[in-house]
Amino acid sequence: MKEYITQNEWSIVEEGFHAANNEITESLMSLGNGRMGQRGNFEERYTGKTLLGNYVAGVYFPDKTRVGWWKNGYPNYFAKVLNACNWIGIDLKIGNEVLDLNTCTVEEFRRELNMQQGVLSRVATVQMANGKRLKIQSKRFCSMVDDESGAIRYAVTPLNFDDSITVTPYLDGNIRNRDSNYDEGFWDEIHKETSFSQGYLVLETKENPYGVEQFRVATGMAFDIRINDLKTDYQSLPVRQEKFVAGVVHLDVKEGQELVIYKYGVNLSSSNYAYEALIPEAKQYISRIVEKGFEQLYAEHVQAWAHKWEKNDITIEGDIAAQQGIRFNIFHLGQTYTGEDERLNIGPKGFTGEKYGGSTYWDTEAYCIPFYLSTADEKVSRNLLVYRHKHLKKAIENAEKLGFTDGAALYPMVTMNGEECHNEWEITFEEIHRNGAIAFAIYDYTRYTGDETYLSDFGLEVLIGISRFWKQRITWSAEKEQYVMLGVTGPNEYENNVNNNWYTNYIACWTLRYTSEIIGKLAESNASRLQEIVALTHFDQQTETDSWKHIVENMYFPYDKKREVYLQQQGFLDKEILTVDDIKAHRPINQKWSWDRILRSCFIKQADVLQGLYLFEDAFSAEEIRRNFEFYEPMTVHESSLSPCVHAILAAKIGMKEKAYEMYLRTARLDLDDYNNDTEDGLHITSMAGTWMSVVKGFAGQRVENGLLVLNPYLPEQWKAYSFRIGFRKSLLLVKVTQGGVEVENISDHGVTLSLHGEELFIEAKSSLVR
Amino acid sequence: MKEYITQNEWSIVEEGFHAANNEITESLMSLGNGRMGQRGNFEERYTGKTLLGNYVAGVYFPDKTRVGWWKNGYPNYFAKVLNACNWIGIDLKIGNEVLDLNTCTVEEFRRELNMQQGVLSRVATVQMANGKRLKIQSKRFCSMVDDESGAIRYAVTPLNFDDSITVTPYLDGNIRNRDSNYDEGFWDEIHKETSFSQGYLVLETKENPYGVEQFRVATGMAFDIRINDLKTDYQSLPVRQEKFVAGVVHLDVKEGQELVIYKYGVNLSSSNYAYEALIPEAKQYISRIVEKGFEQLYAEHVQAWAHKWEKNDITIEGDIAAQQGIRFNIFHLGQTYTGEDERLNIGPKGFTGEKYGGSTYWDTEAYCIPFYLSTADEKVSRNLLVYRHKHLKKAIENAEKLGFTDGAALYPMVTMNGEECHNEWEITFEEIHRNGAIAFAIYDYTRYTGDETYLSDFGLEVLIGISRFWKQRITWSAEKEQYVMLGVTGPNEYENNVNNNWYTNYIACWTLRYTSEIIGKLAESNASRLQEIVALTHFDQQTETDSWKHIVENMYFPYDKKREVYLQQQGFLDKEILTVDDIKAHRPINQKWSWDRILRSCFIKQADVLQGLYLFEDAFSAEEIRRNFEFYEPMTVHESSLSPCVHAILAAKIGMKEKAYEMYLRTARLDLDDYNNDTEDGLHITSMAGTWMSVVKGFAGQRVENGLLVLNPYLPEQWKAYSFRIGFRKSLLLVKVTQGGVEVENISDHGVTLSLHGEELFIEAKSSLVR
Repeated sequence: MKEYITQNEWSIVEEGFHAANNEITESLMSLGNGRMGQRGNFEERYTGKTLLGNYVAGVYFPDKTRVGWWKNGYPNYFAKVLNACNWIGIDLKIGNEVLDLNTCTVEEFRRELNMQQGVLSRVATVQMANGKRLKIQSKRFCSMVDDESGAIRYAVTPLNFDDSITVTPYLDGNIRNRDSNYDEGFWDEIHKETSFSQGYLVLETKENPYGVEQFRVATGMAFDIRINDLKTDYQSLPVRQEKFVAGVVHLDVKEGQELVIYKYGVNLSSSNYAYEALIPEAKQYISRIVEKGFEQLYAEHVQAWAHKWEKNDITIEGDIAAQQGIRFNIFHLGQTYTGEDERLNIGPKGFTGEKYGGSTYWDTEAYCIPFYLSTADEKVSRNLLVYRHKHLKKAIENAEKLGFTDGAALYPMVTMNGEECHNEWEITFEEIHRNGAIAFAIYDYTRYTGDETYLSDFGLEVLIGISRFWKQRITWSAEKEQYVMLGVTGPNEYENNVNNNWYTNYIACWTLRYTSEIIGKLAESNASRLQEIVALTHFDQQTETDSWKHIVENMYFPYDKKREVYLQQQGFLDKEILTVDDIKAHRPINQKWSWDRILRSCFIKQADVLQGLYLFEDAFSAEEIRRNFEFYEPMTVHESSLSPCVHAILAAKIGMKEKAYEMYLRTARLDLDDYNNDTEDGLHITSMAGTWMSVVKGFAGQRVENGLLVLNPYLPEQWKAYSFRIGFRKSLLLVKVTQGGVEVENISDHGVTLSLHGEELFIEAKSSLVR
Repeated sequence: MKEYITQNEWSIVEEGFHAANNEITESLMSLGNGRMGQRGNFEERYTGKTLLGNYVAGVYFPDKTRVGWWKNGYPNYFAKVLNACNWIGIDLKIGNEVLDLNTCTVEEFRRELNMQQGVLSRVATVQMANGKRLKIQSKRFCSMVDDESGAIRYAVTPLNFDDSITVTPYLDGNIRNRDSNYDEGFWDEIHKETSFSQGYLVLETKENPYGVEQFRVATGMAFDIRINDLKTDYQSLPVRQEKFVAGVVHLDVKEGQELVIYKYGVNLSSSNYAYEALIPEAKQYISRIVEKGFEQLYAEHVQAWAHKWEKNDITIEGDIAAQQGIRFNIFHLGQTYTGEDERLNIGPKGFTGEKYGGSTYWDTEAYCIPFYLSTADEKVSRNLLVYRHKHLKKAIENAEKLGFTDGAALYPMVTMNGEECHNEWEITFEEIHRNGAIAFAIYDYTRYTGDETYLSDFGLEVLIGISRFWKQRITWSAEKEQYVMLGVTGPNEYENNVNNNWYTNYIACWTLRYTSEIIGKLAESNASRLQEIVALTHFDQQTETDSWKHIVENMYFPYDKKREVYLQQQGFLDKEILTVDDIKAHRPINQKWSWDRILRSCFIKQADVLQGLYLFEDAFSAEEIRRNFEFYEPMTVHESSLSPCVHAILAAKIGMKEKAYEMYLRTARLDLDDYNNDTEDGLHITSMAGTWMSVVKGFAGQRVENGLLVLNPYLPEQWKAYSFRIGFRKSLLLVKVTQGGVEVENISDHGVTLSLHGEELFIEAKSSLVR
């Protein structure tokens, strides 16, 4: 655990240069705007520890699968998030020495990510090997308004010398993914050009044998150099090399003068522009933002962030570390996915790294959608659902590859384009509960928004595909005279290839029931649309729904009659039942135990039965939830970042406040304090939503029941007060929880009825009440 | 299935050149002598499809592990059999054209592996692009007497021209393993030298970070060139290049003259010689064999093979394909392992290819040892057991890596030096029944040979290590109030990570019982040796054997009361119970089904419960065996070459003669007819023993019971007669089975008592009886 980041309500601050932690800081201080993003790299050359990372949303490469032993059904490639052209680079040479913080004495240093404004800044005073001292001040952002562009203000002031300074703003496409399977580069150069103060580079992803689209990205830059903020005359020498363009400018600068470089960058992708339009569009884009200029771009960007914060901020009084942690998580979720484009999703590392590839895991449905439902426009969540509808055909193909037929759909474990990329049989083929999460998200969206149109427009088709999968995936056990589901991996990945994982069996039956219910409703509300869907999916309504009903009524669920708990899987009680206290010296077991030992043990990586009780809480009594929680919680090691929030929410629900707070702490500063020693690879973007859930669904007990927003807030005793903003249908509420009680302020123009501590209340627009 | 090989009793013959099948033919016609070997490559350059393969026993390289997803406990490297220096190469140039069968018109062609003599020969008449026709006649062998050497007689006769012929005998170390994980070369050059008619090359395996021994191999060659078998004068120009030495000789040859090149090669490895001795020893070796000359070397070699065949030949009358098949298998087993060196073992591909790496699987104990016990000196099997004793320390380390303690030993799935190399968690960590096979082989050896000294000298230490592993690997199930074994893969690898695999539970208990029994016996026969072993292994005799007894008495075995069959694993009956007839269009399922579908199905890759009934047949009634056979046989797809022989033996035992013959056919010509389309990678050496077992243990019902050789032979109706030779203790018997009955001839100098069809008979030395 590292704690070098200064605690601050609105900022992530590195005081003094922590070179050894530089890759961690780069991850933490990543910027993005939903379309593009980058790690918190320096603009000038740096030869120390660094992972240069620039990413363009939706652009990927199908990297040939690498496994030790091939299993039938494995995909041919793993779609990798692409480390793209570096557009922030500005080399500096003072006299003959290149500015490089790795070879300077760094006298003063401060790097700050201001989360309120979405801006990264840096102030440093350094002494170079040649004795020259200078001050660097930089500021940059990826515009939330012009979201294919970013801007930089980079200033250098000589402190003890007059000299010629060579400034080289550049675009560099000589970049490789660190996680490339075969150490290959993924980019080819298509075009480059330079002019006095501009440069353009078009790169294309290499040819591939999988029929995957080749992306082109046009990166453009413009720069403007001033001294003491005054226009100055200079010559610019264009440089063109392999995947590299630059302009070289020599300027004589005197001690105390501030040399300022403004650099503007754009990234246009062939997902959004025709090949031939890329260069003209990039030029037009550059012209437009140069005309606006840095200050106006910046002001508009800050305004956009203010608008976001208005909808999703959480304040915590009395615990600055908690305050910083929660905003950090909200900030990164906000800049990773904006919901503008239903072809995009939320990658596990967002724009902060390339590890794990793919852009979409079941995290999106299980964790991120609840966050966006409450903190962003309805269309954001809807677009995330549409994303999966767009992939339905691929999901059916994925299932066909595994031998399923007749429109059964299996959504992938990891994907970019809908095609499965994962290659670990016990996960790829068996962790099929993900299919259930995708069905559940449709329900969750509909319940939250009240928008039934998604179901008839898109959702039902997806539900039918998933239900058909469950139908084919189960087996009739002649022995049990019940249906069983063989060979699965539940959310707890510390069990592989088990039979009758309770959670998977449950969510499968739930999907079958829900799909039938929706079919029934649509038959009444819009029979012609139903007939369209029936025709489209070749759906045999009576036979198929009857067979689903038979499954629902005859499914086997492992249960321990003695303890009255649901069993994670058949045979779970053959294990030695221990608690995490029994293995203190052995944790984390994923580092200290061999895989077989982990599998044989009772220890649980992440909520599994409890994940089901969390999702389907209405079907279980509080007493049942408590019994299961008390059985499973002591065996749960939470070695997935997705786990503690579920325990936090359940603990809060059953009144175990200490446990709820303990679980909240496990997620709140995971990346900020680098708990898992892996922040350097990028941030755990999707699990960040879990922290938000711990507060809003946990401490504040937020639910939606029968179309009503429900709140049951309490104040953790470690805090003085907290507040959060939550959108519900047309209204926007600010909920403040203090020792004195709860104040709900309706800051929107629409009245809203809600249930607060069980009391049904109406709050008029622009008014508030206290309880 | 390919059937281009001519059927012949003693030879594998390719009539006419089948270039497309060349890699298959190269595998089939591989030569070896236990110390070195090579594929049936051409001596002269060949630019067509070929896998050049030369191998030196015991020489390997630790290739860095390559997996998709790392699991704790995986080994750092996979020890690869090394493709070594090519010593057979002889380039020929006629005028300015290089002889290359890929660019010639091949008019006549015959390649033959004579298995009686262990010699590979070739006759070809070709027309080169320049119109010149010539005849090639070659003959080569790897000497069974001077087993670090081989010799070649290579003759060329111009048929329609006089011309200068350039002959270049060479050694070439520029060779790579086709299965290298990261496309790396594994050899460095250490030394090279040439003289008039000799050349030497010393190669060393590259440095590695795993502390694995670096091997050096000195390869030497000598050549002699004659015309019409007369000495002739020529000049030899030495060539030295990177990892390459050669001598270039120009000779004028006239139409009809025979140009003969004799080439001798040696391979000395640093496993057997000090680094500094390699070159002098290689020179001495070369001198010695050159002095003997080709004809004497050849005569001695043929004599050695005659001696081997005397002990292990099987004849089959009335079925030439079967005759060829069985001799092919015996031949390859005979040239792969000779039992001279207890550091060597039987690699899955022997000297016929490099695929799968490693040299030792449980195949050795379960399949090969029974073969060598009956067909070779006692020391051959004993050395295979000593091999495992030498690896006991490593087996304990392997277990420690997985969290086991106190001297528990887990023998590896694949190894060269005792260290586990395999990297697939469900196999590496879970296919632990291999440990049982290693214990059983000790019992099998002792039972067959009557030699109890192995147990006290080495065996008991191994048994204690393995028993300790079983003790720690089981779990007390509070639910069942019995011991269970969680998370294993049985011999049927189409089930992974199951609980209570019947076979594994059985062999574990058997090991515990047998170890205790041996301890008890040794306490009586040699208490002081027992005390030595107790001290050496820190064995707590009372406590440990008590705990083993408790396990044996309280182990859970899955059983179906209705069908009265043992269940392959707990929960097996939840599957849909089908037969292979139900899935005809889907076979082989390992090519047509995804892995999860295979896992969920009832289909069995290789004998599992039946493997147990085969090994421990005395503990089960014939009726029990029949019931289980009739349950499992119809679900067994035999997609492992190790499977059918076990079914053949059991079927023969319970009188299902048709089934026994069908199963025998599945193994008999597996490689010869390239059933699995993989013969080009090399032969399935270890499973070849299964064919021998099908005949001797199956049709002839050979067993050892209470120190007595037991035979219950019958004649498959497809055959006219068959005979086999079998060594039992001091005697050597020739058993002939005809329609008229059984003749047993004792061809040794020692009388023997045996049980024939239940009748106990004594046969004097050099006499026979008929029944």
